[in-house]
Amino acid sequence: MHIADNLELIQKISTPSPTKIVLLVIDGLGGLPNPETGKTELETAKTPNLDQLATKSICGLTDPVSPGITPGSPPGHLALFGYDPVKYNEMIGRGLVETLGIDFDLKPEDIAARGNFCTVDEAGLVTDRRAGRISTEKCTELCRLLEGIAIEGVKLFVLPVKEHRFAVVFRGEGLAPEVSDSDPQQTGVMPKAAKAQRATARRTANIANEFIAQTKSILAKHHPANMVLLRGFSKQPDIPTMSEVYKLKPAAIAAYPMYRGLAKLVGMQLLKTGATIAEEFTTLKQNYADYDFFFLHIKGTDSAGEDGDFNRKVSAIEEIDKALPTLTSLKPDVIVVTGDHSTPALLKGHSWHTVPVLLYSKWCRADRVREFSETTCIMGGLGRFPATQVMPLAMANALKLNKFGA
Amino acid sequence: MHIADNLELIQKISTPSPTKIVLLVIDGLGGLPNPETGKTELETAKTPNLDQLATKSICGLTDPVSPGITPGSPPGHLALFGYDPVKYNEMIGRGLVETLGIDFDLKPEDIAARGNFCTVDEAGLVTDRRAGRISTEKCTELCRLLEGIAIEGVKLFVLPVKEHRFAVVFRGEGLAPEVSDSDPQQTGVMPKAAKAQRATARRTANIANEFIAQTKSILAKHHPANMVLLRGFSKQPDIPTMSEVYKLKPAAIAAYPMYRGLAKLVGMQLLKTGATIAEEFTTLKQNYADYDFFFLHIKGTDSAGEDGDFNRKVSAIEEIDKALPTLTSLKPDVIVVTGDHSTPALLKGHSWHTVPVLLYSKWCRADRVREFSETTCIMGGLGRFPATQVMPLAMANALKLNKFGA
Repeated sequence: MHIADNLELIQKISTPSPTKIVLLVIDGLGGLPNPETGKTELETAKTPNLDQLATKSICGLTDPVSPGITPGSPPGHLALFGYDPVKYNEMIGRGLVETLGIDFDLKPEDIAARGNFCTVDEAGLVTDRRAGRISTEKCTELCRLLEGIAIEGVKLFVLPVKEHRFAVVFRGEGLAPEVSDSDPQQTGVMPKAAKAQRATARRTANIANEFIAQTKSILAKHHPANMVLLRGFSKQPDIPTMSEVYKLKPAAIAAYPMYRGLAKLVGMQLLKTGATIAEEFTTLKQNYADYDFFFLHIKGTDSAGEDGDFNRKVSAIEEIDKALPTLTSLKPDVIVVTGDHSTPALLKGHSWHTVPVLLYSKWCRADRVREFSETTCIMGGLGRFPATQVMPLAMANALKLNKFGA
Repeated sequence: MHIADNLELIQKISTPSPTKIVLLVIDGLGGLPNPETGKTELETAKTPNLDQLATKSICGLTDPVSPGITPGSPPGHLALFGYDPVKYNEMIGRGLVETLGIDFDLKPEDIAARGNFCTVDEAGLVTDRRAGRISTEKCTELCRLLEGIAIEGVKLFVLPVKEHRFAVVFRGEGLAPEVSDSDPQQTGVMPKAAKAQRATARRTANIANEFIAQTKSILAKHHPANMVLLRGFSKQPDIPTMSEVYKLKPAAIAAYPMYRGLAKLVGMQLLKTGATIAEEFTTLKQNYADYDFFFLHIKGTDSAGEDGDFNRKVSAIEEIDKALPTLTSLKPDVIVVTGDHSTPALLKGHSWHTVPVLLYSKWCRADRVREFSETTCIMGGLGRFPATQVMPLAMANALKLNKFGA
């Protein structure tokens, strides 16, 4: 067998076992120092439990995609799950990303597209690709109108996302995603016709154009949102599941749709959970007996970072630290604590900076790091490494990987 | 779009902005400790300005090509410019390297070959492939003679390089580089005929053989340099420019031809400059308003290392340190200081050792390194990493890269 990438190598040597792994993802964990104190959010937060765990762990810093690259949520998480974030992110079309973000239960045969409500003038030329960024309420109301459209042989879902953005899902037999965008990506021109990019997608293109035509008459009186633009026709990609690759029975605990969607994409079971940090940790405890891998996702740190709220990010980290004993008292064989990328409050957004990681197991070969932070993890036994290597390390520490080679 | 390598990924997400990057390359920067003091050249030099900058920076150590590999100047610089040094170095034929090293303005359609003056006996067998290493003056004189050769449809340039080495450039329409060497790479045999390796190169091979034939009669009385051997027929390779990849307006300040040649290869504007360290820094100051990326190359450190002159290398580093305020007072958004490889005086040549790097920006996440040296940079926040990642990191710190993935 030719081994094309690391995932294939892991799949070849992974083996089921009774050990359990918990991957705690603190979204946007890494930060930048507050100019007044010289300390990052994580360094400012009081984290006795994380520090105690770091003391027993091996630590390091990860590059989510590669040095200098600021990852969006999909590549950041794909990497943590062990999937090449560039290769697999490309398989996730824009339409699919929208449905991931709104908790829609996409079926393998469904075709999803990203939609914009837009404005066209009397000649039909696009004057505003975002229809003046109508409110999410307005978007929801218009999506309900459009869901009334009937097209023979397909079931339609028109799903509000945010402001002018929505997703449309076409469900039916024999549909194909190789359909070009109707969105011309500029103003002053007509929307394009959706075109089949291969013969098998002709029916899907016709259905898309029929949807657009009916939409146009329904929206005629709804200026500025009097037309739609579709792009990124896509289908659930053929990604090997975590059960196939790692022989795990994996479960996801995530309060936000995007992360549930990403977990589902790699075959995790989605667990019902409350949205607070404490509730998510309780969900872990309640389901601990039934799975051998848990992805526990905390969003609050990233949201605070995106808002530029240094102190709120500090508080979120402290809240996680308080909840940590719920996790550690379950005594998982392997605990990984890290983030999917950095979100420094100073930059008010995702960034390219490396992300602290700690890995605890009985076999981890603990280093001298005594505090979980950006500055101390530099000195850790894992050094600086690509985030795709986190899962192989977790698997090894759970004694779930056989020897490679005789 | 399928993303084949990191350069393509960067090209996809790079975006122009008013921020400026200065890449200061101290050629052969890395060294080895003087056995008497235990300190390297960089550790011996008094460098208050570099140390102050290191304190505000994130530091690390680069592998120019990969661990254990000693790079020549082309791969060392290609890596620093962000280009895969193995892949792109292969595109640079031997003939091209010679013209890069002598400041010749090669046109995209030109064919260049590396030439050796050699000695042949009466039977025409090669007896010395280097013609007893004739002087550079003699080489220059003979090249002038050969430039008188007339071949229909092409313009000829015969360019002295050093000792027995020269370059020949054929300029004309429809020439192709797929021509085999005339150099047999051994003595006791006849020079080979240049042969077309594909049909489109037949005319070029004929021209090369015509040049060799005329050369033979011109040089007949010039023993030991009574014949020439040609090899490495090559053309300017099709390399994406830095403007294409990074959306930068890049300029190069370099006193030595080889580095100007390499900078030109990736599309940098070459700035006129004086050759001393102070003059090169002044050139930076004078042109600072007109570009957003500067490659500033200092040769003296490498030359001293090659000569095995530890103290002269120390002095060169101290001279750079004294000039540094000219650079820092311009307040570039991103400053990178590093080398293209190590040239330890103890080894009297390029070496495989890692190279210290510091990266300063407002967003760099400074580490605890307070002194710019081989030993301290190990502790830096960048860890040890491939030199090809320097440019993505510089671009990220200049906020010139968009987020990758939704």
